[in-house]
Amino acid sequence: MSLSSAKRLGKRVIGYPETSVPVVSAIDYVVQIFDTPTSRLKTYLISLFPILSWITKYNLGWLTGDVIAGLTVGMVVVPQGMSYAILATLPAEYGLYSSFVGVLIYCFFATSKDVSIGPVAVMSLTVANIIKHVQHTDPQFQGPQIASALAAITGFIVLGIGLLRIGWLVEFIPAPAVSGFMTGSAISIAAGQVPGLMGITGFDTRAATYKVIINTLKGLPRTKLDAAWGLTGLAGLYIIRYACLYLCKKYPRRARLYFFISVLRNAFVLIVLTLAAWLYCRHRKNKAGKYPIKILLTVPAGFKHIKRPDLNTELLAALAPELPVATIILLLEHIAISKSFGRLNGYKINPNQELIAIGVTNTIGSCFGAYPATGSFSRSALKSKSGVRTPAAGIITAVVVIVALYGLTAAFFWIPTAGLSAIIIHAVADLVASPSQVYSFWRVSPLELFIWLAAVLVTVFSSIENGIYTSIAASLFLLLVRIAHPRGSFLGKVTVRESSGDKSEREVFLPLDKGGVTHEDLKVVPPSPGVLVYRFEESYLYPNSSIVNSALVDYVKDNLRRGRDMTNVKLSDRPWNDPGPSRGGAVQDQTDNEKKPVLHAVVLDFSTVSHIDTTAVQALIDTRTEIEKWADHPIEFHFASILSPWIRRALIAGGFGTGISASKVREIAAVVPDHYDTSAVPEYRSEDVESGTDLKKQRSVSDSTGGNEFAPVVSPETPFFHIDLAGAVRAAESGLARVSN
Amino acid sequence: MSLSSAKRLGKRVIGYPETSVPVVSAIDYVVQIFDTPTSRLKTYLISLFPILSWITKYNLGWLTGDVIAGLTVGMVVVPQGMSYAILATLPAEYGLYSSFVGVLIYCFFATSKDVSIGPVAVMSLTVANIIKHVQHTDPQFQGPQIASALAAITGFIVLGIGLLRIGWLVEFIPAPAVSGFMTGSAISIAAGQVPGLMGITGFDTRAATYKVIINTLKGLPRTKLDAAWGLTGLAGLYIIRYACLYLCKKYPRRARLYFFISVLRNAFVLIVLTLAAWLYCRHRKNKAGKYPIKILLTVPAGFKHIKRPDLNTELLAALAPELPVATIILLLEHIAISKSFGRLNGYKINPNQELIAIGVTNTIGSCFGAYPATGSFSRSALKSKSGVRTPAAGIITAVVVIVALYGLTAAFFWIPTAGLSAIIIHAVADLVASPSQVYSFWRVSPLELFIWLAAVLVTVFSSIENGIYTSIAASLFLLLVRIAHPRGSFLGKVTVRESSGDKSEREVFLPLDKGGVTHEDLKVVPPSPGVLVYRFEESYLYPNSSIVNSALVDYVKDNLRRGRDMTNVKLSDRPWNDPGPSRGGAVQDQTDNEKKPVLHAVVLDFSTVSHIDTTAVQALIDTRTEIEKWADHPIEFHFASILSPWIRRALIAGGFGTGISASKVREIAAVVPDHYDTSAVPEYRSEDVESGTDLKKQRSVSDSTGGNEFAPVVSPETPFFHIDLAGAVRAAESGLARVSN
Repeated sequence: MSLSSAKRLGKRVIGYPETSVPVVSAIDYVVQIFDTPTSRLKTYLISLFPILSWITKYNLGWLTGDVIAGLTVGMVVVPQGMSYAILATLPAEYGLYSSFVGVLIYCFFATSKDVSIGPVAVMSLTVANIIKHVQHTDPQFQGPQIASALAAITGFIVLGIGLLRIGWLVEFIPAPAVSGFMTGSAISIAAGQVPGLMGITGFDTRAATYKVIINTLKGLPRTKLDAAWGLTGLAGLYIIRYACLYLCKKYPRRARLYFFISVLRNAFVLIVLTLAAWLYCRHRKNKAGKYPIKILLTVPAGFKHIKRPDLNTELLAALAPELPVATIILLLEHIAISKSFGRLNGYKINPNQELIAIGVTNTIGSCFGAYPATGSFSRSALKSKSGVRTPAAGIITAVVVIVALYGLTAAFFWIPTAGLSAIIIHAVADLVASPSQVYSFWRVSPLELFIWLAAVLVTVFSSIENGIYTSIAASLFLLLVRIAHPRGSFLGKVTVRESSGDKSEREVFLPLDKGGVTHEDLKVVPPSPGVLVYRFEESYLYPNSSIVNSALVDYVKDNLRRGRDMTNVKLSDRPWNDPGPSRGGAVQDQTDNEKKPVLHAVVLDFSTVSHIDTTAVQALIDTRTEIEKWADHPIEFHFASILSPWIRRALIAGGFGTGISASKVREIAAVVPDHYDTSAVPEYRSEDVESGTDLKKQRSVSDSTGGNEFAPVVSPETPFFHIDLAGAVRAAESGLARVSN
Repeated sequence: MSLSSAKRLGKRVIGYPETSVPVVSAIDYVVQIFDTPTSRLKTYLISLFPILSWITKYNLGWLTGDVIAGLTVGMVVVPQGMSYAILATLPAEYGLYSSFVGVLIYCFFATSKDVSIGPVAVMSLTVANIIKHVQHTDPQFQGPQIASALAAITGFIVLGIGLLRIGWLVEFIPAPAVSGFMTGSAISIAAGQVPGLMGITGFDTRAATYKVIINTLKGLPRTKLDAAWGLTGLAGLYIIRYACLYLCKKYPRRARLYFFISVLRNAFVLIVLTLAAWLYCRHRKNKAGKYPIKILLTVPAGFKHIKRPDLNTELLAALAPELPVATIILLLEHIAISKSFGRLNGYKINPNQELIAIGVTNTIGSCFGAYPATGSFSRSALKSKSGVRTPAAGIITAVVVIVALYGLTAAFFWIPTAGLSAIIIHAVADLVASPSQVYSFWRVSPLELFIWLAAVLVTVFSSIENGIYTSIAASLFLLLVRIAHPRGSFLGKVTVRESSGDKSEREVFLPLDKGGVTHEDLKVVPPSPGVLVYRFEESYLYPNSSIVNSALVDYVKDNLRRGRDMTNVKLSDRPWNDPGPSRGGAVQDQTDNEKKPVLHAVVLDFSTVSHIDTTAVQALIDTRTEIEKWADHPIEFHFASILSPWIRRALIAGGFGTGISASKVREIAAVVPDHYDTSAVPEYRSEDVESGTDLKKQRSVSDSTGGNEFAPVVSPETPFFHIDLAGAVRAAESGLARVSN
């Protein structure tokens, strides 16, 4: 059997009419996607290592900036790293491991010069929660082991997302969700650190935030000596910061000096507190070997935990339910800040490459014993402000961390943990959204304020995990509701004249019921009676197809003439749910009916429809069927401004546009199979074909371009598809004139 | 403290600029929603009982139609009901209970005259699976108990959805998913009934379909005497059907007669088979009390299981994971067919009321021992074709079922189960999608063919449950991908002249790169150099905001002049990721740069944007910042065809439209808090305000309506918002002329 006869057989089995109108083909689309595969692959592979594009041009000017920024970030990341490790309920040295790996590895894969990777507050809190959950069911696992395994797995996942180039999934976390989540987390973290700051112990600081706050208040009488270090440290940090800000404004010439003093406040306060702790504690060790305030004690020097991360099945199973939230936080913070700094400093990051960078960083980091690290808001801002020039600054920061890790651990012994709590509280307080920002959500989109609020409240009253899930789900729900409930409007004409120039007037189509956008005095003139102009306000897809159908059919039934005279129809012959007026009222009803215009054409403005699907085409066919049944004669359907060849293809498949076979296609997505079809819609073959051809002849010459050439703007095979709304309405109205003559 | 001073304080805390431009207020919106609450409540309550609107007009003409249709459906529902109960692994009488309750209760709540509620194939299979799952973990529960509890709970859920008026959620199940799921289920059901048809036993017929098919083929040698009844019955059903169809065509005058003969084939075949079984079996009972073929045996007469459904916590817990799929199937089938018949017969159903109807039916049904019942495709088609006039036909059908339940159960003793299998196979075979329907998915939207295919394959190879979840999730994913990846295009002008009339020419804006919709020879003229016209092709929301941002910024960087001359910038002063050309090439580069036009204005066509959110407004602000940084001078942003006052509000909040403070608002949804802001974008206050005011004066008089009145079409406070694209482009170009003069 030859190919063509096989094709013929296939067509007979399918029983589909031969399409005479050429449409876009799916094969072309697929071929175009796999165009030039080798050169694409090459570009892809090179893009994996952005360092190759700038390292050859490295110069002294860049180096100066990088060294200053690298040292500055180093001075901050050492105290912060240790603090965040404590927040993550890990020994302090793990924060240094994460810091070192984060800043070093990132510079090879970075597409952003500003972002600094390392331990961050929210991720640390999440790690603390995950350790708590896992140990609750499997107490045999140690905290560091769980944290490293988490870094390895989430690193792999993020690396995979980056390599597959599906980083756009991150876009599904909108700004209010991020902001609400960050605010809620900051409140949670700060609340959880207050007990440490005050030396209050005796309850779970990782419980829901409101419980922690209540317990802290209850525990205030139990405040210990630690508070002297903690509160002093916190006050010191804020005093230095605001003093520097004040001096900056007063002496703008020395702004840079004050900026660097301000930056070093973390290190400075910690050194002072440590000295004080050393002076006070060194001779006050009690018999149990305890010191009067809580200090870090032995921090081992160097990397003590370099090994393959321990990924046994049991640990993986215990971690599995925590992976989504850990991955989301890993992605979220990093992408948000890398984009943000790209914008501020006028360059463009590649989100997928950034995901690869944090993926690789965490995967490699887990071998060094690091816990999950991602982009840090505060340190990135610092790096940017310190005048960083290239991602190479990370290497300098890594050197600082190494020095601290090998040379300063002896001094770290005396660091008071209350001081570290002060550093954490000071850092996260900046993450809380300001009132003006919250108000701007209200100004831009009131509903989003509620999403923001939900994120904050759920985070505070339940958990970070639920907070982020709630806000993402609420945003997605709002998105789907918006798609499922499109506004649509029937349009009328307004003639606009430019009073300034001598240019001719033009027609603008506006909704008949003005929705507050245009001027109130404006008179919108409806199109000729018998012509309806309807504009969609969304893509025409399955969630909204039946709303659009109802809108059109209801409007027609309310405002246009019913084709059949119901005066002489007996009650028993009428439908049960629309028995119509009583005997006396029937004549009146028919009189009212005859006052309404006879429907001739429906013009659909497809300029807002960027996609259409089977369900929607079926709804459109149903709309036509129902409207024609009401009007009791065929109706022309005109389409204006079709945006894509695929929409054209779908409409033609639904029997629209050509004017031929318009009434024949009735079931594109049949629910009730054909042989049950009980439709009673009359068929208007000859008449319809005629009017179609008629129109075809007329239209194929009428629309033409200006300039020197005259060419038809749309294909003459589809006379019911028009280039713009004005053209479509004109065609519909001219058809009306032809009919009434 | 008075209210106004509280307000002032609030404003100071928030630190937001006083808005001078009036915008739509959220309070007005809320007030409008809760407008006229009592009359709304009244309408709502009356709408709950649609029977009130038609029962008073009931007449003899309607009665005739209803009696005929009611009797016809009754003749079909009795054999089908018993068959489907067997399919649900319940005793046959449960099918009759469900049938009775379904047809009776529905008529009080129905908004569709055609739909017939009762046991259906897919729901029965689902019930069988659910019974299997529940008994697997909790073997103490009996099948009928589980089925009735399921009816009660899903009934409550669906009733709740209906009462809350959130039936639009059903729209999220698109046509290809429904079709694929129905096809897959039909294949599953038919495959599961073949062993019963042939009398093959010895394996689980509720396993995955492919396993059932393999085991059936393996078991063919074990075929028993039952096959004589089963195959004869199946053949008989098809012969009667096709004979009637043939005769219908040959003698169209007697079509109605043949139609009724065809309809009665189920009852007729079953009676013949039962007689044959009685004749053959009555003297062949073996010593164990067994008959040579499988027959129904005792079917108890009347309602034996009227009681409150047994809803203990343990059973509820066991049912919980099965509820989503059971609810979806309950909704899905019913809404799909009630809509479908509404369309075919030209009336409109109320989906929420239909949900209430099946909710009440199932809740009450569970007290009669009924298992979940929903709208039946085949019986509804039958009812419609038999000439039903009102939902009251259900009462007649209920009488038929009662007669069968009290008078015929003795005869039911001898019904061969192979005959019931034949009836099931015969019924579900019609649910399989025809090749032409599958091809039409391809023609309309190729991707949806794959969703259909996935639904079929997953249903056959895994389970009905997974099939429906897969297809819904795949459709939702496709929807989100479409929203996240909008096309957008830069537009140019085409002047269209109507050759037929004497009407003046008009301007149409079309994409500069034609995407196959318009004619190939068409020349699209770009707007004046320095003016960009960009059209979105979706709502501008968080999933797509950064794609749109990239599209605009990339285009500007590629095609428009960079404001800063890079010739004399040292390498060390250049950004690391864009070091520019080598020393020799710099001059050449600047020459190329100077050939490009200077950007003056960006015109955004908002006619496709029906929603905007905070993330998108932030992206728009970023776009402006980045473009102004590239161009090194302020750029005018014009907006055409804003669809809703909420979009206008959001844009004004983002600093657009007024021309004042345009460069001031920079962070609507700040990721990095303000005090980290390192932006280096120069501010153009005075200049910008001036050009804004200038334009304001000019525009406030220029746009005006035709007709007798002249009125500005858009508010003079927002001179950068335009009524249509032509107006926006003209304003942008006139601004350009002003600048260059």
